[in-house]
Amino acid sequence: MHLYDCTPAPSPRRVRIFLAEKGLDLPRVEVDLAAGEQYGDAFRAVNPRCTVPVLQLDDGTTLAETLAICSYLEACHPSPVLLGHDALERARVLEWNARIETEGLQAIAEAFRNRSRGFHDRALTGPEPHAQLPALVERGRRRSIAFLDMLDARLADVPYVVGNHYSLADITALVAVDFATWIKLEIGERPHLARWHRAVSARPSASA
Amino acid sequence: MHLYDCTPAPSPRRVRIFLAEKGLDLPRVEVDLAAGEQYGDAFRAVNPRCTVPVLQLDDGTTLAETLAICSYLEACHPSPVLLGHDALERARVLEWNARIETEGLQAIAEAFRNRSRGFHDRALTGPEPHAQLPALVERGRRRSIAFLDMLDARLADVPYVVGNHYSLADITALVAVDFATWIKLEIGERPHLARWHRAVSARPSASA
Repeated sequence: MHLYDCTPAPSPRRVRIFLAEKGLDLPRVEVDLAAGEQYGDAFRAVNPRCTVPVLQLDDGTTLAETLAICSYLEACHPSPVLLGHDALERARVLEWNARIETEGLQAIAEAFRNRSRGFHDRALTGPEPHAQLPALVERGRRRSIAFLDMLDARLADVPYVVGNHYSLADITALVAVDFATWIKLEIGERPHLARWHRAVSARPSASA
Repeated sequence: MHLYDCTPAPSPRRVRIFLAEKGLDLPRVEVDLAAGEQYGDAFRAVNPRCTVPVLQLDDGTTLAETLAICSYLEACHPSPVLLGHDALERARVLEWNARIETEGLQAIAEAFRNRSRGFHDRALTGPEPHAQLPALVERGRRRSIAFLDMLDARLADVPYVVGNHYSLADITALVAVDFATWIKLEIGERPHLARWHRAVSARPSASA
């Protein structure tokens, strides 16, 4: 089993943190996204969607979505629990993970990819070209600010995103909040978000 | 336990089909999205994100993401299995469900919401207004066509989206393919998609 990775990119960092929390160390194959390696024939044979992370099992089977990879790893290595301790907490992890993907990661990517020179015609992930749209830079930025405000309000009530336990939702949120600095959005005057960010960033997994 | 629903909308239909496959019947509260009821104070108290479906438990707890709702229902009512029979199939269901949400439902919504008069300043779901962008109508349409082609290719190899078993991924795909008709995209000359669509549409759950 090995992981197709790209060290600077947000999405595969989620899997690296998840692995570190589980105490697992997998062989990694670095894919140079900045050089466009994901669009080459060799990587397309692994994942025609041209994205990382991809988990490849020893029989060649691939999983190419972060949530799918984490679900598989949790089933094989249940401890510590990162996808919820009971039916309701499991549902909450999925709810918050999806919400943070949409309102956080996608919003920040919208602002970032529609402006950066390196993403010309690559405003969306995937094999098909999509032109950058200047209006989406501003929309993505507004959505990203709303996301940080929402997360600050949520963390006023609870120590971790889903409640009392650290989970994949915290991992996704940490990666999103750090990704927001790529569009020059900082935590700033959001005290609950700042307290949580200090705590989750201090875990050894955060540097994975 | 009851479900906040909107009969004509794609997302809550996923939960209704899931419930029907489980043989469950829940009380439903209809939310009139066309009239903007989701933005009113009464519904915001249920879900500040202004979306349906929402599952409300008897203690008042709410779940407001389709995947989270289905995960909770599967835990409470495991049979028939709709989220995968083993670790790998569970991961596959999550992978395909996420992929169909992004490449299918989101793409079709992009084309639909950026054009329709009823979605003026509502190009995205949620409480914040977002202006319609004409460039996204065309982008969403191109992405939706690519989605139908991708699904046809996938279904050349397997009877159901994740392989041999009907699952939530088929439900999400069925709702997406039917939603595509809202932007006048039909199955057309895609024989594998057509075969699968006939099969899943013939299940009694499809009319839920």
